[in-house]
Amino acid sequence: MIRLKYHLPGTAPGLLSSDHFECSEKSVISLFQYDAESVFEGEFDSFEELLERYDPTKVNWINIDGLGDLELMRKLGERFNLHALALEDVLNTTQRPKFEHYDENFFIVTEMLYFSPEEELLFEQLSLFLGTGYVITFQEESGQDVFDSVRRRLRSGKGFARTRKADYLTYALLDAVMDQFFPVLEVLGDGIEDLENALLERPSKNTLRELHECKRLLLQVRRASWPQREVLSSLMRDDTGRIERETQIFLRDCYDHITQIIDIVESYRDLTSGLMDLYLSSVGARTNEIMRVLTVVSTIFIPLTFIAGVYGMNFDTDSPFNMPELKFKYGYIAFWCLALTMGVGMYLFMRRRKWL
Amino acid sequence: MIRLKYHLPGTAPGLLSSDHFECSEKSVISLFQYDAESVFEGEFDSFEELLERYDPTKVNWINIDGLGDLELMRKLGERFNLHALALEDVLNTTQRPKFEHYDENFFIVTEMLYFSPEEELLFEQLSLFLGTGYVITFQEESGQDVFDSVRRRLRSGKGFARTRKADYLTYALLDAVMDQFFPVLEVLGDGIEDLENALLERPSKNTLRELHECKRLLLQVRRASWPQREVLSSLMRDDTGRIERETQIFLRDCYDHITQIIDIVESYRDLTSGLMDLYLSSVGARTNEIMRVLTVVSTIFIPLTFIAGVYGMNFDTDSPFNMPELKFKYGYIAFWCLALTMGVGMYLFMRRRKWL
Amino acid sequence: MIRLKYHLPGTAPGLLSSDHFECSEKSVISLFQYDAESVFEGEFDSFEELLERYDPTKVNWINIDGLGDLELMRKLGERFNLHALALEDVLNTTQRPKFEHYDENFFIVTEMLYFSPEEELLFEQLSLFLGTGYVITFQEESGQDVFDSVRRRLRSGKGFARTRKADYLTYALLDAVMDQFFPVLEVLGDGIEDLENALLERPSKNTLRELHECKRLLLQVRRASWPQREVLSSLMRDDTGRIERETQIFLRDCYDHITQIIDIVESYRDLTSGLMDLYLSSVGARTNEIMRVLTVVSTIFIPLTFIAGVYGMNFDTDSPFNMPELKFKYGYIAFWCLALTMGVGMYLFMRRRKWL
Amino acid sequence: MIRLKYHLPGTAPGLLSSDHFECSEKSVISLFQYDAESVFEGEFDSFEELLERYDPTKVNWINIDGLGDLELMRKLGERFNLHALALEDVLNTTQRPKFEHYDENFFIVTEMLYFSPEEELLFEQLSLFLGTGYVITFQEESGQDVFDSVRRRLRSGKGFARTRKADYLTYALLDAVMDQFFPVLEVLGDGIEDLENALLERPSKNTLRELHECKRLLLQVRRASWPQREVLSSLMRDDTGRIERETQIFLRDCYDHITQIIDIVESYRDLTSGLMDLYLSSVGARTNEIMRVLTVVSTIFIPLTFIAGVYGMNFDTDSPFNMPELKFKYGYIAFWCLALTMGVGMYLFMRRRKWL
Amino acid sequence: MIRLKYHLPGTAPGLLSSDHFECSEKSVISLFQYDAESVFEGEFDSFEELLERYDPTKVNWINIDGLGDLELMRKLGERFNLHALALEDVLNTTQRPKFEHYDENFFIVTEMLYFSPEEELLFEQLSLFLGTGYVITFQEESGQDVFDSVRRRLRSGKGFARTRKADYLTYALLDAVMDQFFPVLEVLGDGIEDLENALLERPSKNTLRELHECKRLLLQVRRASWPQREVLSSLMRDDTGRIERETQIFLRDCYDHITQIIDIVESYRDLTSGLMDLYLSSVGARTNEIMRVLTVVSTIFIPLTFIAGVYGMNFDTDSPFNMPELKFKYGYIAFWCLALTMGVGMYLFMRRRKWL
Repeated sequence: MIRLKYHLPGTAPGLLSSDHFECSEKSVISLFQYDAESVFEGEFDSFEELLERYDPTKVNWINIDGLGDLELMRKLGERFNLHALALEDVLNTTQRPKFEHYDENFFIVTEMLYFSPEEELLFEQLSLFLGTGYVITFQEESGQDVFDSVRRRLRSGKGFARTRKADYLTYALLDAVMDQFFPVLEVLGDGIEDLENALLERPSKNTLRELHECKRLLLQVRRASWPQREVLSSLMRDDTGRIERETQIFLRDCYDHITQIIDIVESYRDLTSGLMDLYLSSVGARTNEIMRVLTVVSTIFIPLTFIAGVYGMNFDTDSPFNMPELKFKYGYIAFWCLALTMGVGMYLFMRRRKWL
Repeated sequence: MIRLKYHLPGTAPGLLSSDHFECSEKSVISLFQYDAESVFEGEFDSFEELLERYDPTKVNWINIDGLGDLELMRKLGERFNLHALALEDVLNTTQRPKFEHYDENFFIVTEMLYFSPEEELLFEQLSLFLGTGYVITFQEESGQDVFDSVRRRLRSGKGFARTRKADYLTYALLDAVMDQFFPVLEVLGDGIEDLENALLERPSKNTLRELHECKRLLLQVRRASWPQREVLSSLMRDDTGRIERETQIFLRDCYDHITQIIDIVESYRDLTSGLMDLYLSSVGARTNEIMRVLTVVSTIFIPLTFIAGVYGMNFDTDSPFNMPELKFKYGYIAFWCLALTMGVGMYLFMRRRKWL
Repeated sequence: MIRLKYHLPGTAPGLLSSDHFECSEKSVISLFQYDAESVFEGEFDSFEELLERYDPTKVNWINIDGLGDLELMRKLGERFNLHALALEDVLNTTQRPKFEHYDENFFIVTEMLYFSPEEELLFEQLSLFLGTGYVITFQEESGQDVFDSVRRRLRSGKGFARTRKADYLTYALLDAVMDQFFPVLEVLGDGIEDLENALLERPSKNTLRELHECKRLLLQVRRASWPQREVLSSLMRDDTGRIERETQIFLRDCYDHITQIIDIVESYRDLTSGLMDLYLSSVGARTNEIMRVLTVVSTIFIPLTFIAGVYGMNFDTDSPFNMPELKFKYGYIAFWCLALTMGVGMYLFMRRRKWL
Repeated sequence: MIRLKYHLPGTAPGLLSSDHFECSEKSVISLFQYDAESVFEGEFDSFEELLERYDPTKVNWINIDGLGDLELMRKLGERFNLHALALEDVLNTTQRPKFEHYDENFFIVTEMLYFSPEEELLFEQLSLFLGTGYVITFQEESGQDVFDSVRRRLRSGKGFARTRKADYLTYALLDAVMDQFFPVLEVLGDGIEDLENALLERPSKNTLRELHECKRLLLQVRRASWPQREVLSSLMRDDTGRIERETQIFLRDCYDHITQIIDIVESYRDLTSGLMDLYLSSVGARTNEIMRVLTVVSTIFIPLTFIAGVYGMNFDTDSPFNMPELKFKYGYIAFWCLALTMGVGMYLFMRRRKWL
Repeated sequence: MIRLKYHLPGTAPGLLSSDHFECSEKSVISLFQYDAESVFEGEFDSFEELLERYDPTKVNWINIDGLGDLELMRKLGERFNLHALALEDVLNTTQRPKFEHYDENFFIVTEMLYFSPEEELLFEQLSLFLGTGYVITFQEESGQDVFDSVRRRLRSGKGFARTRKADYLTYALLDAVMDQFFPVLEVLGDGIEDLENALLERPSKNTLRELHECKRLLLQVRRASWPQREVLSSLMRDDTGRIERETQIFLRDCYDHITQIIDIVESYRDLTSGLMDLYLSSVGARTNEIMRVLTVVSTIFIPLTFIAGVYGMNFDTDSPFNMPELKFKYGYIAFWCLALTMGVGMYLFMRRRKWL
C-alpha cells in the first residue's frame, strides 16, 4: 500500500519533531572527504567531532543514517543554513521526489529502490543538500544503501571523479540511485512474462492475485520515477552556476536513463492492464469451453433419459392403449434406433453450430 | 452525491439572498486580533461591536460561522470592500476552490475536509478574504473547524507566527486545511486495502457497494483537491506584494503538500478502478470454478443415469429381442463395468483438459 | 441522437437559404430598448417599423424568434453589417458554441438548455450579435426562452443593469443561459443516484437502457458546455474595448460558473462510466449466485438420481449376480444411508469451498 | 482496413515511379480557366496542348484525374516548380492530410470522403498545389469527385466566386471536401442509433459485427479529419500573402466546420465505445435471465425426479424394512404432498431471492 | 518482452566495457568514401588501416558491425571526439531513439526494424555520429542491415546523392530506416484483419494468444517510433548549420513518414484494444447461445422426466389411492397429452421471450 507519513495536522510548519515518526534509532554520522590528492573516511559520534574534521576546501560528503536524532539535525541546519521546511521534509519520509532551490543550497528528495539482501524490494527516501563544498545526505535506515560503487570509485581515485566538485558527487549519487531501477525493472519484466504464460495456460485465482500485486508495485515504481525526471530536468537547466556545465552533460545522460525507466514502466503498465483483460477473456473462454461440454452432454442425454423413463412407466398394459410398444417384438431395438437417431441428430446439429 | 447549490436562474448577479439556501441559523461573529505582543479573542453580537474593537495596526482575523445573516454580510462587504460577486460565492457553498484577485483584497474559496466527532467525513466550504491587516473567513457551520491548532499557536506566541502579517495567517489557515487531507486519505487507503483482500478472498455484493462508495468518495476528494493546487500556485506567483516573499516559501511547502495529496488521490483512483476489474475477474473465476464442478458431475452422471434408465424399462422380455441383457447371468456386473468405464473415461478426459 | 443540420454540400458559402431547413414559421421581431431612465418593449411586424423605433443612443435588444424569414435576415445583415458567414451559422442550428470577432461586431453562438413546460429537456441554439448600442439575438423557436428574468430586471430598473451598455446585456443573457444548466444538472444527478441504487439492488434491462440514455444526455450537455468556456474566455480577454473592464469582472464570474458546470459534467461522466462496470459486475455476481444454487442442487441430486435409477433396473434377479442388493433385508435402509452420506459429503465439500 | 501504400524501401526519395502502384490508367487532364468576365472549360490530350491554353492572368484550375502518367507529372513539376518530394506524396496515396509550404507554391494533401453512386463510402486522396494564378489538383480516380457544385458556381458567375484569385478557389475546393463529411456522418449517426436499439432489444452476433465495422469506419473518418484541421489552421495563419485576408475569413468558417466534424466524430466514438460495453452488459443480462430459468426449473424438478426415482426402485418388499411406503394406503398421495411441498418451498425460496 | 540491457549499477559513467554485454564477436570495420566523382568501398582489419584511407575532403561513412571491440571504439572516440557517454550508449543497446548535440558532432540513436531472411521481425539499434565529413554508424549485428539501397544509389551515382555532404547521407540512412517500418506495419495490419475475422467467426484460445502477441509487438513498434519523431524534429530545427537547408526539406519528408507511421501504429493499437473487447463480447455471445440451448432442452425435458419417473414408481396399486392413473384405460395417452402440452407450453414460453 502507499505509505503515508505526515506530520500531525495542527503542528507548526518547520517544527522538527520525530516523536510521532517511528524512527527512534540513533543516527549514524559519517564523512567522506576528498580532493584530487587525498581521501578521508570516518564515522563520528557527535556533530562537534564532525565539524572539527570538516574542511571547506575539499569535497565533504556528510551522510546521516537514521532520522532519529533531531538535535543533530537542528545543528546541521544551523551550521549549513538548511531551511526548516526542508528539514521537516527530510523527516517526513513519504515525500515525492522534488527539487528545491534555496539561496544557500539545493535540496533534493529522491527515492532509492533496491533489493535487500533478503531479496525484498525496498523503497527508501534519500534527502540531499548540495552546497558549496558539501553534500549532506539523509537516509532512513542505516546499514544499507546503493552507494558502495560510488565510494569505491572515489577511494580508487581512477577516472576523474575525485577531481570534480560537490555537484559531480551529487550527479554520481543520483546516477547510482537511477541505476538501481534497472535490475528492479528486469525482475518485474520477468514476472510479467511469467504471468502472461500462466494466464494463457492455466489462469487461476493465484495468478490474479500476483497480477494485482504486480500492478501495485508498478504504480509505486511509477510514483517514484515520474517526479524524478522533473528533478533532473531542473538540475540540468540550473543557471546559478552551482552545477558546472560539464556536470550538466552527465546529468543529461542521467535524464536519459530516467526517461528510459519511465518509458519501460509505462510499457509495463500497458502490458499489465492488458493482462487483466486477458485474464477475463481467458476465463471467459474456459467457461465457454466447459459450458459447451456440459451443454453437449446434457442436450444429448437428457431427452434420451426421458424416453427411457417413459418405457420404465408401469401403466397397466392390460388396456391395449397403454404402452403397446412394450409388447412389440422389436420394441427394444426400435427404442435404441430412436435413441441413436436422436443422439446423432443432436450431435450433428451442434457440430453444425461449431460447438465441437 | 455531488452537492449542487446554485442561485435560482433569473436572480440578479451579486444579489445577496439566502432565503433559498437552507442556512437560516444565526451567524456567529468572532475576532482573533494579535500582534507580536498581544492577543485578543472574542465573540460579538453585532457588526458594530466588532468594528469598535477592530484595529488596523494589528492582524485581525474575523471569522463568521454560519451564512444566515445577510445584513451582516452586506455591512462587511461595504466596510471591507468585498465584491458583491465574491459575497455571492460565499453563500453559494458548492463553489470549486478558486482564487480571485480584486483590487482591495484577495478572495479564496477552499474546501475543508474533516471527520466530525461522529467519525463522519464532512466537506465544508471555507471562504477567505485577505486584505491589508485583516483576514475574514466564512464557514458554513458553526461549532467545528480545523483551525484549533492555528489558534493554539497564536495564543502561545511561540515560533514566529505572531510576528507575521495577515498573509502568513492565510498560509497557516490554508496549511491547516491541507493537513486535514492526510488522515482522511489514510482512512481511505486502509479501506482500499481491506477491499482488495475482500475481493480476492470472497467477493460479495457488499464489497461491490463499498467499492463504489469508495470511488465516489475519491471523486469528491479529487474535486476538492485539484483546484486547490491552482489556488496555491496563484498565491505563490503573486507579485502584488500582498504576499511577502518569506510567506511564499511557506506556500511552496503547502503547494508540495497538495501536489502529494493529488498524487495519492490519483494513485487511489488507479487502484480502485483496477479493483472493479479485479471484482469482475474474481467473480468470473469463481463462476468458472463452480461451472467446472457442475459440468464434471453432470457429464459423468447424466449418461450413467440414462443407462440405468434403459435397464429400468419394462419391455416385454418374452420377445428374445427385448432387453435380453436383463436375463444374462452377469448382466448387472456388466452394467457396472460399463458404468465405471464410462465414468472413469469421462473423468480422464476432463482431467486431460485440466478441469480438475 | 446528435442533431446534424448542415447546408447541402455544394451550396455557396454565405448563401442564405432556409428551404432545406425545417423552420418555415414566420419570424417574430421584438425590441427591448432602454437606458437608465426609460424602457420600451414592443413587437414589430416588419423590419422597417423596427428601424423607425431604433435609437442608437440607447441599448437596443433586438430579438428574432424563429429563423424562417430570410428576407428579414438579409436586411438585418445589411443594416448592422452582420457577416454573411455569420448569418449562415445562425440558420445552421447545429453549430457548436463559438465566438467570432468581426470588425463591426462580435458574433456569439451558444446553446440554451432548459426544461419545457412539459418537463422535456430542450436544446436550442442562441445566436447573438453584439455591436455598438445593440444586441441582436436569434432563437430557433418562438414562445419560450430563458430570458424572462433578464427582462424583469431591466423593467424594474433596480440594480445597475439599466445603467450599463450592450456589453453588460450580453453578459446578462449569457449568464441566464449558464444558470439554466444547474437545474438540468441537478435532475441528471438525481437520476444517476437513482440508477446507482437500482443497479446495486435489482439490475434490470431497463436500468441499462436508462443508464445509456443518461450517458447520451451527458454527452450532449458536455458538447454544449465545453466550447462555451472558450467563448467566455475569449470575451474576458477581449482588448478591443467593446467589453468594458467592469463587465469583464462579471464575465469572470460567469466563466467560473461554466467551469463548475464542466467540472460537474465530467464528474457525472466518471460516475456513469463506472456505473456500466457496476452493472456488469452486479449481473456477474447475480449469475454467480444463481449458478451456485444450480450447481449445489445438481451436484447433490444428480448422482443420487443415478443410484435410485440403478435400483430401478429390471435385471433378472434369478441370477445371484444380478442386483442381490434388492433382496437384502436392510437394502432400502442401506440405500438411504448411502444417499445421505453422498448428499452430506457433497454439501460439506461445497461448504468448504465457500459456495454456501 | 487501413490502406497502406508506400514506395518500396530502398527507392530514392523524390523518385517518381508508379509501376509499384496499381494506378495504371491514363491520366485525364482538364482545365478550368476563369476571370470575372469569362470561363473556359476543356480536356486536353497532352501537356503541351494544356500549356498553350494556359493564361497566367486568369485563374487556372488544372485537374488531373488518375495518377498513372508519370511523364505528365514530371513535366508539370518542371513547369510549375512542384517539388519532387511533393510529387512523390501525390503518388503515394495513403498520405495523411498535410500542408507544406514551398517557396513557389503551397502543397496541400486532403482526403475526400463521399458516397459513390453505388452507395459505397469512398476515401480518395486529393493533392492540391496553390501557386500564383493556378491551382493544380490530383485525384486518384477519374469520373467522380465532389466539385460539381464548385464548377456550377464558377460557370454561373453568380456571387463573387469568379472575382477572386486562386486562393479563393482553393478555399472553395477545401470547403466542398469538408461539406461532404456531413452527409457521411449523418448516415453513420443513423447507423449508430439503429445499433443502439438493436443492442438493447436483441443483441446478436451480427450486431457485434456491425458495431465493429462502425468503429473501424469512424477510426478512418477520424484519421481523415484530425489532420485536416491542422491544414486549415496553417492556411488561416499564413502570412506570406498568398492567402488574402478576405479569404482567411472564409477559411475560418471552413475551420469551424472541420472542428464541428471532429467534435461529432469524437462523440460518435464515445457512443460506440459505450455500445461495446452495452453489448457485453446486455448479453450478460440475457445470460443471467436464461440461467435463472434453467436454475429455477432444475432446482425444482431435479430433487423431485430423485424422489420419484426412489419409489421406482425394485427392492424386495418382502422384507418389512424395504420400502414399506409403497404399501401404505395413502403412500401415493403422501408422495405428491411431499413433492408439492418441496416444489413450492423451492419456489418461495427463489422468489425471496428475487429470481422470479 | 521488452529487452533490458543496462550497465551494472555501480560502474562508472562513460566507462567502456562490453564484458557484461553478450556481444563478443569481432567488430567489422567498413568504409564507404565518396564525392561527386569517385566512390571507394572497403573493409579494414584495423583502425590504423582505416585512418590511412580516411580523407576529410570527401564524405566518409564508417560502419562498425558488431559492438565487441572496445579498443576500436576507444580509438574512434579519441580520433573523432566522440563523447564517452555517447559511446556508452552505443554499447547499451536498449536505448530509446534520441538525438544529442555535442560540440564536435551529432549523436543519433535509432531503431532498425526489419524482417530477417527467416521472416522473423528483428529490432536492432543503430547508433550514428554525424561530424564534418564523416558519418559513423554502429550496428549490433553484422551481416544484415537496411542500407543496401543507399549503397546502391551511392555507387550508381545517379541522382544528386553523391553531390551532397554527410548531412544528406545521414538523412538517407534515417530514411532507409523509416521506410522499413511500412512493410512491417503492412504485415501487422494483415494480421489484425485476420484476427478480426477469426474473432467474429470462431474465437478460440489461440486467437487470444495471437491477439496478445500482436498487442505486444505494436507496443514495441510504438516504443521504437514515437521518440524517432523527436529525433527528426530536432534535426529539422537544427540551426548550427551542420544540417543544410536543402537537407532539412528532405528531413521534413522523413518527418512526415514517421508521423504517418505513428498515426498507423496508434490506429492499430486502437483496433487491437477494441479486438480484446470484441473477443470478450464474442465469447459472451457464444456462451449465451450455448446456454440458451442447454436451458431450452433442460427446461423442456427435466419436468417431463419427472412425470415419467412418477409413473415408474412401484406403489402398491392394491390401494385405490395409489396411482389409479396406471389402470386407466387411456392413462398412457393422457400421459403423452400432458407431456406434449407441457413441452409445447415451455417452448412457446421461451419463444415469447425470444430465446429461440
